[in-house]
Amino acid sequence: MGNGDYSVNPVKHAKVGKGITVADLMKQYETCAFGAGRLARAVKIYKQMQAEDVTSFFGLAGAMIPAGMRQVVADMIRRRDIDVLVTTGANLVHDMIEAFGGEHCQGQCTANDIELKNCKIDRIYDVYLADQHFTTFEERFDAIVADILDSHPQKLFTICDFLQEIGSRIEDKNSILRAAVDNEVPVFCPAIADSSIGLQSWVFGYKRDLQVDTFKDIRQIMDICYKARRAGALFVGGGVPKNFIMQSMLLVPKGFDFAIQLTMDTPETGGLSGATLDEAKSWGKIGEHADTVTVYSDATITLPILVAATL
Amino acid sequence: MGNGDYSVNPVKHAKVGKGITVADLMKQYETCAFGAGRLARAVKIYKQMQAEDVTSFFGLAGAMIPAGMRQVVADMIRRRDIDVLVTTGANLVHDMIEAFGGEHCQGQCTANDIELKNCKIDRIYDVYLADQHFTTFEERFDAIVADILDSHPQKLFTICDFLQEIGSRIEDKNSILRAAVDNEVPVFCPAIADSSIGLQSWVFGYKRDLQVDTFKDIRQIMDICYKARRAGALFVGGGVPKNFIMQSMLLVPKGFDFAIQLTMDTPETGGLSGATLDEAKSWGKIGEHADTVTVYSDATITLPILVAATL
Amino acid sequence: MGNGDYSVNPVKHAKVGKGITVADLMKQYETCAFGAGRLARAVKIYKQMQAEDVTSFFGLAGAMIPAGMRQVVADMIRRRDIDVLVTTGANLVHDMIEAFGGEHCQGQCTANDIELKNCKIDRIYDVYLADQHFTTFEERFDAIVADILDSHPQKLFTICDFLQEIGSRIEDKNSILRAAVDNEVPVFCPAIADSSIGLQSWVFGYKRDLQVDTFKDIRQIMDICYKARRAGALFVGGGVPKNFIMQSMLLVPKGFDFAIQLTMDTPETGGLSGATLDEAKSWGKIGEHADTVTVYSDATITLPILVAATL
Amino acid sequence: MGNGDYSVNPVKHAKVGKGITVADLMKQYETCAFGAGRLARAVKIYKQMQAEDVTSFFGLAGAMIPAGMRQVVADMIRRRDIDVLVTTGANLVHDMIEAFGGEHCQGQCTANDIELKNCKIDRIYDVYLADQHFTTFEERFDAIVADILDSHPQKLFTICDFLQEIGSRIEDKNSILRAAVDNEVPVFCPAIADSSIGLQSWVFGYKRDLQVDTFKDIRQIMDICYKARRAGALFVGGGVPKNFIMQSMLLVPKGFDFAIQLTMDTPETGGLSGATLDEAKSWGKIGEHADTVTVYSDATITLPILVAATL
Repeated sequence: MGNGDYSVNPVKHAKVGKGITVADLMKQYETCAFGAGRLARAVKIYKQMQAEDVTSFFGLAGAMIPAGMRQVVADMIRRRDIDVLVTTGANLVHDMIEAFGGEHCQGQCTANDIELKNCKIDRIYDVYLADQHFTTFEERFDAIVADILDSHPQKLFTICDFLQEIGSRIEDKNSILRAAVDNEVPVFCPAIADSSIGLQSWVFGYKRDLQVDTFKDIRQIMDICYKARRAGALFVGGGVPKNFIMQSMLLVPKGFDFAIQLTMDTPETGGLSGATLDEAKSWGKIGEHADTVTVYSDATITLPILVAATL
Repeated sequence: MGNGDYSVNPVKHAKVGKGITVADLMKQYETCAFGAGRLARAVKIYKQMQAEDVTSFFGLAGAMIPAGMRQVVADMIRRRDIDVLVTTGANLVHDMIEAFGGEHCQGQCTANDIELKNCKIDRIYDVYLADQHFTTFEERFDAIVADILDSHPQKLFTICDFLQEIGSRIEDKNSILRAAVDNEVPVFCPAIADSSIGLQSWVFGYKRDLQVDTFKDIRQIMDICYKARRAGALFVGGGVPKNFIMQSMLLVPKGFDFAIQLTMDTPETGGLSGATLDEAKSWGKIGEHADTVTVYSDATITLPILVAATL
Repeated sequence: MGNGDYSVNPVKHAKVGKGITVADLMKQYETCAFGAGRLARAVKIYKQMQAEDVTSFFGLAGAMIPAGMRQVVADMIRRRDIDVLVTTGANLVHDMIEAFGGEHCQGQCTANDIELKNCKIDRIYDVYLADQHFTTFEERFDAIVADILDSHPQKLFTICDFLQEIGSRIEDKNSILRAAVDNEVPVFCPAIADSSIGLQSWVFGYKRDLQVDTFKDIRQIMDICYKARRAGALFVGGGVPKNFIMQSMLLVPKGFDFAIQLTMDTPETGGLSGATLDEAKSWGKIGEHADTVTVYSDATITLPILVAATL
Repeated sequence: MGNGDYSVNPVKHAKVGKGITVADLMKQYETCAFGAGRLARAVKIYKQMQAEDVTSFFGLAGAMIPAGMRQVVADMIRRRDIDVLVTTGANLVHDMIEAFGGEHCQGQCTANDIELKNCKIDRIYDVYLADQHFTTFEERFDAIVADILDSHPQKLFTICDFLQEIGSRIEDKNSILRAAVDNEVPVFCPAIADSSIGLQSWVFGYKRDLQVDTFKDIRQIMDICYKARRAGALFVGGGVPKNFIMQSMLLVPKGFDFAIQLTMDTPETGGLSGATLDEAKSWGKIGEHADTVTVYSDATITLPILVAATL
């Protein structure tokens, strides 16, 4: 192999002018390297994922709702940028807290946590949340679940169906869960018990019996995988959402055709959250010829940029 | 406040001699700072957690079994160093793969993943696992689940009970799941569907109906929390195991009295995995006066050290 | 303290529309948290640093030139956004390589490094650089140094003066070093020996004697500190540039009034690169009431955004 | 390639018993993966580096002295485990502070830095250092430099020679700098101006003229490289020490034969500190067939282990 093969694309330096748009900034980043170059590639891949015959999975970990990403995610659903959402109980709980009138506040990550506790404030890095919003959440959640059970006595729910029932009873149109129902985007949350939804369901269980099955969701996501002509995955962070989407391709003849990771997790710990997208190719979760990129940067910065540059 | 308050414990430099034991090394680290000082503090806290009236929760995330930590964890259970195990589906699947005769191999994190795929090798960072071991897992898992259903027709299992049933049918005494059953250590795995156990349960579901409830485990772990006179938590990595243990203290009047994190996740991403133990105090998950420490280092290095220094 | 004190600024969710500008995106981030909120605060602080009576120091570590950030930095100098540049030998060498006609190319961080070596390609993460460009650099650097010595026989240079002499002999107006000379922005590079400038000076030393003093720069940067009415610091990465700027305030009665860090280094290692800006307050490097923020994200993404949003 | 090639070394699980030595723990880690497996490999490589015909370079970044690693490093020098030390000004200053009677203290990384400042305490992550020790340092340093100039009037020093002169005037035999002089281990510190040595030399400069050359060290380290039959490098952290050692091999026909990194810096930022040892092979800094390993873990934990296991 000669030098030539390695020198096809020279780095051209980014130039920013007054009033530059996010989309134009990404054009500047296209000829850069490191994070800038990778973010521009993520935009390119994300655009390809918007094609009609690509089924797009969105794995949303972390605590993105408290950080101010609720509208961006809800809008992605409304535009049908994504076809399937897999997320954490935490993201759903914080979405519901806001749907029920609660609010998150900007705080300090260096706060005195004992003082916060005494003021009944819960801290999520540099976000504060008043305890009282959990009380409201619990009351409203109970009422919704009671209504669901009234409508469907003795039903054994899948988690996905249970979330669909909840979402259809949320009035706030800005809610992610409500937007998902409105736009027929299924929401999966395999670790739903690991959240205040789980805790409240336990409390609720003293009153009435709620039956939600652990494994039966898998059929629903597998069906989507089988039907997909081409498939793409966008991961914000790792955790269960990443693995659940990845494993859904394990039993399908071909893996994902496109994959993007927006994360701060690096591979060196050996964990699945930071695992490279290449590693997933050895398992067949991602296809051999798939177009993939990982952007190592705070996703609250990069997700809105990815979205804005693709509109 | 005078200078004196800040100068109580001078750093004394670690000294290592030929044949030094791990326990003595930790004594040397006691007067150091950064990771060394923190690891020594973790040893001190872990020793306190071994007191009879402390109920110890162990949150085990990551892929610790493939990395060679199976014996260390099984021995922790056998010695009853821990009273409750909360872990990922991945750790349980890899435990079972070895229980059923499979093996993990040392590999390269820089391997060509397409070549690996063509050789039917799955990569987990620098560990290789032959696809064929999953086939064996699937057959054996199916047989075990069939046997469970024969013994308990039409039972609605909690995840914890389901794992207990599986563990009692594993012959390999080195298995973590078997050791947990033998020593009456309950095993929780809220995201069990997010693993090959989940996938295989879906395949199995075409033959017979297996019903495992998503929320009912919570009662079991809450009961343990309520009964605990004092409680301690050891976290390897973050993820669902960390959050599930943490949230179990949300509804109990007091939080954990002791907590140790062995992790590479840092707080700056805002996610729960890297959240400081102080943050958990604002929520009341960890008590105001609790003794806590986080060691930012690879847990495959620090966990065996923590254990060895405490024996 | 009541709840109210903790609930002043509710998180309002970012909203992005088609054609949104970088400046407007930052307005959206102002009411967010995590990285997004911090980047918006960095923009606010950076704007304040542009006031006439603020002397702005720019600590530029990393390998930002190969990654495509040359123009952004040169433009910052031309607009006099910054008054002092402290950087690494690497950034200066790569700036000169491009000034002398060389180019960096987009590559793969997963490349086979032995193959690259055989093709005489040097890799910097996902950037390739042909060895031949170093040959050109060496020849041109030698000629420039010979010319400097002809003009100033037997002079004992400070590093800053030496760089000023080099910069004035660079023809490429896009060069950072040339832009600095043109705009009278002094460039400090305390570890200049730790670069190809150092290596080539050693080779050159076999021909003629070049005398550059190690310590005498300090007077120059201290003079700037003493004269500054107010001072601000922008750090890209850590390393020597960060520490050298920080320590320059150690002997001045007051510390920096503004400070911004764009970095991926976190405090948990105990090193200076990742040290918090609060830590610097204990030393007096940063003033007690200074306005500071650290953005944990890839600086090739965040630096152009910071600059674009401030224009 | 068949499966066999990928399945040579099965993971055998680490087992720890009461009283296990550090050396035996490393034997257990030899058959593990992730950090444990890598640390065991580092021990193996470090043992090979102790062979007589291997010249060992030690790049010591970070703030290892405040953290309690002074004795370990001094003992490495005394045993001649290493032949060349390249370090930061910070490590040398903190070594001298202790040599002159000062002490570092264990503190809290969550301290209130304004309070610390008011108490004249400087914080280095979780280490405290009283300001007063800097005053002592400055007086003693001045006296030593005055004595050096008396002995060598008008001499133009290299940094290495200057440090040798200082070290020979330090009475404390536990000092790293003194141990280096006693054992004829040259100490390089390319960024020496970037430390309190630099600041104090500036203050001193008002009294007498001290001339230390920036580039002339390079000849000294290059001579060592040329003479080395085989060469090994141990890096604690990255920064200037890593790069200076690496670049010293750029002009030598062959690169390092052995290399170990103990670090928390990962490659994803694109910086030299976190760059993989493979990347260095593309440059020829590390030889094609070199034995190398990177251990991603806190070096205050892993360095004493590496040393203890090799004795």
